[in-house]
Amino acid sequence: MVHPWQDTTLPAPERAADLLDRMTAQEKLAQLCSVWPGSDAQESGEVAPLQHEVAERVDLDELLPHGLGQVTRPFGTAPVEPADGAARLAALQERIRAANRFDLPAVAHEECLTGFTAWQAAVFPTPLAWGASFDPELVGRTAEAIGASMRSVGVHQGLAPVLDVVRDPRWGRTEESIGEDPYLVATIGTAYVQGLQSAGIVATLKHFAGYSASRGARNHAPVSIGPRELADVILPPFEMAVRDGGARSVMPAYNDLDGLPAHAHHALLTQLLREDWGFTGTVVSDYFGVSFLESAHGVTDSRAGAAALALAAGVDIEFPAVRCFGAGTPPQDAVDRAALRVLTQKCELGLLDPDWTAAPPTPPADVDLDPPHMRLLARELAEESVVLLANAAGALPLAPGTRIAVVGPLADDPAAMLGCYTFPRHVGVEHPRLPMGVAVPTLLQALRAEFPEAMFVADPADPADPGDADVCVVVAGDRSGLFGRGTSGEGCDAADLELPDGQGELIDRAIASGTPTILVLLTGRPYALGRWADRLAGVVQAFFPGEEGGGAVAGVLSGRVNPSGRLPVSVPREPTGQPWTYLAPPLGHRGEASNLDPTPLFPFGHGLSYTTFAWDVSDVPAELPTDGETTVRVTVTNTGERHGTEVVQLYLHDPVARVALPVARLVGYARVPLSPGESAEVHATFHADLASYTGPEGHRIVEPGALELRVAASSTAVRHRVRLTLTGPERIVGHERRLRCEMRVK
Amino acid sequence: MVHPWQDTTLPAPERAADLLDRMTAQEKLAQLCSVWPGSDAQESGEVAPLQHEVAERVDLDELLPHGLGQVTRPFGTAPVEPADGAARLAALQERIRAANRFDLPAVAHEECLTGFTAWQAAVFPTPLAWGASFDPELVGRTAEAIGASMRSVGVHQGLAPVLDVVRDPRWGRTEESIGEDPYLVATIGTAYVQGLQSAGIVATLKHFAGYSASRGARNHAPVSIGPRELADVILPPFEMAVRDGGARSVMPAYNDLDGLPAHAHHALLTQLLREDWGFTGTVVSDYFGVSFLESAHGVTDSRAGAAALALAAGVDIEFPAVRCFGAGTPPQDAVDRAALRVLTQKCELGLLDPDWTAAPPTPPADVDLDPPHMRLLARELAEESVVLLANAAGALPLAPGTRIAVVGPLADDPAAMLGCYTFPRHVGVEHPRLPMGVAVPTLLQALRAEFPEAMFVADPADPADPGDADVCVVVAGDRSGLFGRGTSGEGCDAADLELPDGQGELIDRAIASGTPTILVLLTGRPYALGRWADRLAGVVQAFFPGEEGGGAVAGVLSGRVNPSGRLPVSVPREPTGQPWTYLAPPLGHRGEASNLDPTPLFPFGHGLSYTTFAWDVSDVPAELPTDGETTVRVTVTNTGERHGTEVVQLYLHDPVARVALPVARLVGYARVPLSPGESAEVHATFHADLASYTGPEGHRIVEPGALELRVAASSTAVRHRVRLTLTGPERIVGHERRLRCEMRVK
Repeated sequence: MVHPWQDTTLPAPERAADLLDRMTAQEKLAQLCSVWPGSDAQESGEVAPLQHEVAERVDLDELLPHGLGQVTRPFGTAPVEPADGAARLAALQERIRAANRFDLPAVAHEECLTGFTAWQAAVFPTPLAWGASFDPELVGRTAEAIGASMRSVGVHQGLAPVLDVVRDPRWGRTEESIGEDPYLVATIGTAYVQGLQSAGIVATLKHFAGYSASRGARNHAPVSIGPRELADVILPPFEMAVRDGGARSVMPAYNDLDGLPAHAHHALLTQLLREDWGFTGTVVSDYFGVSFLESAHGVTDSRAGAAALALAAGVDIEFPAVRCFGAGTPPQDAVDRAALRVLTQKCELGLLDPDWTAAPPTPPADVDLDPPHMRLLARELAEESVVLLANAAGALPLAPGTRIAVVGPLADDPAAMLGCYTFPRHVGVEHPRLPMGVAVPTLLQALRAEFPEAMFVADPADPADPGDADVCVVVAGDRSGLFGRGTSGEGCDAADLELPDGQGELIDRAIASGTPTILVLLTGRPYALGRWADRLAGVVQAFFPGEEGGGAVAGVLSGRVNPSGRLPVSVPREPTGQPWTYLAPPLGHRGEASNLDPTPLFPFGHGLSYTTFAWDVSDVPAELPTDGETTVRVTVTNTGERHGTEVVQLYLHDPVARVALPVARLVGYARVPLSPGESAEVHATFHADLASYTGPEGHRIVEPGALELRVAASSTAVRHRVRLTLTGPERIVGHERRLRCEMRVK
Repeated sequence: MVHPWQDTTLPAPERAADLLDRMTAQEKLAQLCSVWPGSDAQESGEVAPLQHEVAERVDLDELLPHGLGQVTRPFGTAPVEPADGAARLAALQERIRAANRFDLPAVAHEECLTGFTAWQAAVFPTPLAWGASFDPELVGRTAEAIGASMRSVGVHQGLAPVLDVVRDPRWGRTEESIGEDPYLVATIGTAYVQGLQSAGIVATLKHFAGYSASRGARNHAPVSIGPRELADVILPPFEMAVRDGGARSVMPAYNDLDGLPAHAHHALLTQLLREDWGFTGTVVSDYFGVSFLESAHGVTDSRAGAAALALAAGVDIEFPAVRCFGAGTPPQDAVDRAALRVLTQKCELGLLDPDWTAAPPTPPADVDLDPPHMRLLARELAEESVVLLANAAGALPLAPGTRIAVVGPLADDPAAMLGCYTFPRHVGVEHPRLPMGVAVPTLLQALRAEFPEAMFVADPADPADPGDADVCVVVAGDRSGLFGRGTSGEGCDAADLELPDGQGELIDRAIASGTPTILVLLTGRPYALGRWADRLAGVVQAFFPGEEGGGAVAGVLSGRVNPSGRLPVSVPREPTGQPWTYLAPPLGHRGEASNLDPTPLFPFGHGLSYTTFAWDVSDVPAELPTDGETTVRVTVTNTGERHGTEVVQLYLHDPVARVALPVARLVGYARVPLSPGESAEVHATFHADLASYTGPEGHRIVEPGALELRVAASSTAVRHRVRLTLTGPERIVGHERRLRCEMRVK
């Protein structure tokens, strides 16, 4: 007999409800639990805070007869050959199924921020580089490829993307974030969600919410924030990824917001996320996030209390392993509600289907997590994300015969290409004899390939004597790592934005040698560059550009790649004075009232090209109803000699509002690739909803009055100001509002 | 005929209402306006941001026939002999009275943060030093003396105290603040209010609210804060000063809070302040604060709009001169409401009385703004506020015959004693040939007096060669100033907490000389001292200690004064990584999740003595009802050889609460002066209301459960832990709650 829950013609929630009805209380609870195989094994590194301290052995023989919700990190805990890992996961799934009376497998989740966090898997640029690409389409394709590779070995859910808007770049997880503008984060992040989920992988939005605004940029520190800033800056990427992107999972943040820990935040996890936004997926705890309610936030004095708080707030599953959810007896209605969501998601993933098989979709012999098409994607994204910050007197690109001295400790280090959520940095560092698993050419290797002729290397430690080079390339930046084992990454926060490890002195010495000096930055955050601003021949900024990053940067230096990246974060002049963000009202910028001038050296959206562009912007009607839409037409012409890509950016300046608003915020952008002499017209469809903001009463409103649309090449390089007057009544806009400015290249 | 408003037997509000009824709309509005005589004169300096840019001539002949609300800074705009100033003010008042049909004078207001901001007036220690004294009684007496001197020359209102709780010591106005703990700020600030008002001067609480929490500590920058943090950290000092202190005036802050400018913040200025707290005084704008609604916050596009917003929110008077309130026609009901408050206050001040006279209370010949009793108070407060931070191997006090080298650019500079709201630094700096007006011995002069014998001075610029001295005293710190003209003070924010002007190198060189080095800090904020922590023989911290500060510090060095100051702000180890405050939940302190360790070098409440103390704490019943009160008895014994004062501090640790609470917060303190061998018992009356905090629903609650009272010598030097369990129901506490822990020395 086929039960309704097995009937694939019925909708998932109905099937899940039927199955739930058949379960005992213990079986329901088991669906909210996860296990982490191998987390406490000798050979596994520490990939989460307190992993070894907090993780505890779970007796599978005792647990599995009731079923199991999730399996944690089958590939990202210790190195495993991908095909072997897939086979092991399949065997575990068989064991899980065999043990429970519904033959139900678990959901297997894995990290995938910069690619599948598995040994031998392709390593893509870090999210800050996605932001720099200003190319959601390419990020979406990348995510789809990542998702396909995860599906090929039996994984169902990926713990990405990070949608935290950068509020203080000293935070170690800045590299995991897309940028400091919520619109950029929202559009790029949503594209990632759609791409990953199109491959059948559940995307997990994190960290919900406010994590990036911690005091002093210290990881997990308290977040001082009010409801208006939360609504207008922190939440929009999550809302877009839920509403437009259809994200199926959300992970609460470790931090508290104004004293309320996110994992116990009913207003956030239930009222806003589910009731207002209509989210129907699962909320999965961050690793040990439920435990931290007791041990770190002090909002309960027991594990059972932590479980009850989290479940009541809207957390459905405890990661990375059952700890609090197995203590005491959580209220049954909360368990039922969470289990229904978990079962619905399992149903959507096909795990309730009679024909489901534990065998991974791809035969072991065909498993390849770093195939050529993924390397091509990694290359394409890396190339689009390199930002040419400065190019004094056209020092770049370097001519083929240039004699180049390459100095700096990162010049010949593949680790310099990799963010902290890549397998080699996340897990591999704990296994010093393990091969990297994927080819990651260093910048030096890539430069040798790029400039096969007249190239030589000075002593990396002695830039004071770059021989008889024409140019000295100083390669500086970060080493990513976890919890203090790097200069960037989770738990590697910076007290200021001085280049780490004394690398500034390297630059000083290179400049002092008299040889024209090009600074190449391979970093996870912006660093202060004011000290050298007027003395460098060129500055190239890459954000952990991944396995193909060396070639991408080398290509920019040679001119093979015409740089088209734009800054997703401001580059400051001074290392101190943080936090600062371009997203500030007038009093957040330079002014009469403070001696401190926070004006960045290179503003948000900045990036140079080897060609030049002319801009022409159409007139639009001067008035627009508060519920109206208008189209701004921007014609861009490549007026130089090389093919190149301009990034047309649209910023909104609202001179008078009911609250203090940022002087400018991004509301649209488009990449415009152009051959020499070629023109293209960009149609920017601007709906008045894009001018909405959260007013004093807490509603999102559009009010009549003057607006200025800034058609710009960066947040400060305004090419044209379109002045509009919104007319008609003030409107409260709800979920119907247009979140995007569609900018199409005609 | 005597009208009701002239009848001194009637209550002030009734008299004011009667007068209001007789006024035209123009007359009412004029009561909300102020004028600033001499603000645009050639000889006046810039004492407010944009003073010269924004201030505009007001035609008194046109304005005065309708009356006038306030006269701005009759003594603090340009130097004037006090008696001449009093005569001029009296003449102006006569002119004001003569011009309007009710014979009504204006209220004259002046700054008085560290004493009356007038030439030749006594200069007291800066508020951070009041905090360090932990002595509200003495601060109250000081304020009373300040008030009496202001009254003696015809001033009615003082623009102090500053009740901003320090949230980021990089902020330039940290020196104007009392400390980083709201209880300390509240109790000291309230004592100031009571003292000032007991002399007949209206105290003005500022800046309401949140100003100290600006982004990056930049003056006027946006404030990210939620309602819970606002309620538990920022607002308590204002509430105590209104409810306990009976403050009669409040000044809104320049900043926005979560986007809402304080000057347009109805919830703050009306709902909370008046409706909840019962405040009945006046709300006076900060200088140009109404204008800034248009020009800086962009919440209106006109002066008239700014006036309407401010009046609607609850601002009553525009400072420093009428600008927006004179533009357009504000709604009459808002004008009526504000004018009634202004007239009520004038009535309370006696300005409506038939026998009021413009002549100042003190005859010109007797005016002395710096008489001996004020200098004694200044000395007493300075002595109590000096904090002995470190004293390695008992290097201090120095023996009488010690050969002392005194180095550092501030050693012989009287300005080093003075905060930015003193007349010499606020106004005098603009008049280079003007004598200081009061005697301010430098530290060097004071040391010569203190050590009349074996003392000499090395080259201040060359501490590498302190001759054959036994000890080298390095005097380092700030020069206060306004708007970038100093290293501390309004508009003099710091990008980090490195000692300014390269003074750190001076310390390095002194230490390198091999001579035992004592560091004396004369600053307006805490600076990072970790670099020298283990290499200094002693560290003495004074916060702009005023005209008698030199002697106070010298007395501590000689031992004539046994130091009893305690840190009102944490002293950090490193200059970067800000902001930090001791008032943080566990995740705001050092932890596993971040590599950064924000633990201060010297914690809040820390301070050494030349004697030693033994502590004994009584047991208290283990249970206390959630509405109960208990008494903790602390016996302190001076076990050393010198008279000395211990500061008994009581901190509350609430291990489990409904929100993430600070690990410890101050709830009581008492100074205990003791002769050698003497004991005293401190009775600390702890009511459960002191454990209240703002819960998730926004109410202030006391909940049952475990508490720990830490009887301590600093926020980390816990002498005894009193463990209590609160029993009974959770309570919502309202305005009846006990705000103070009374600690009496028996």
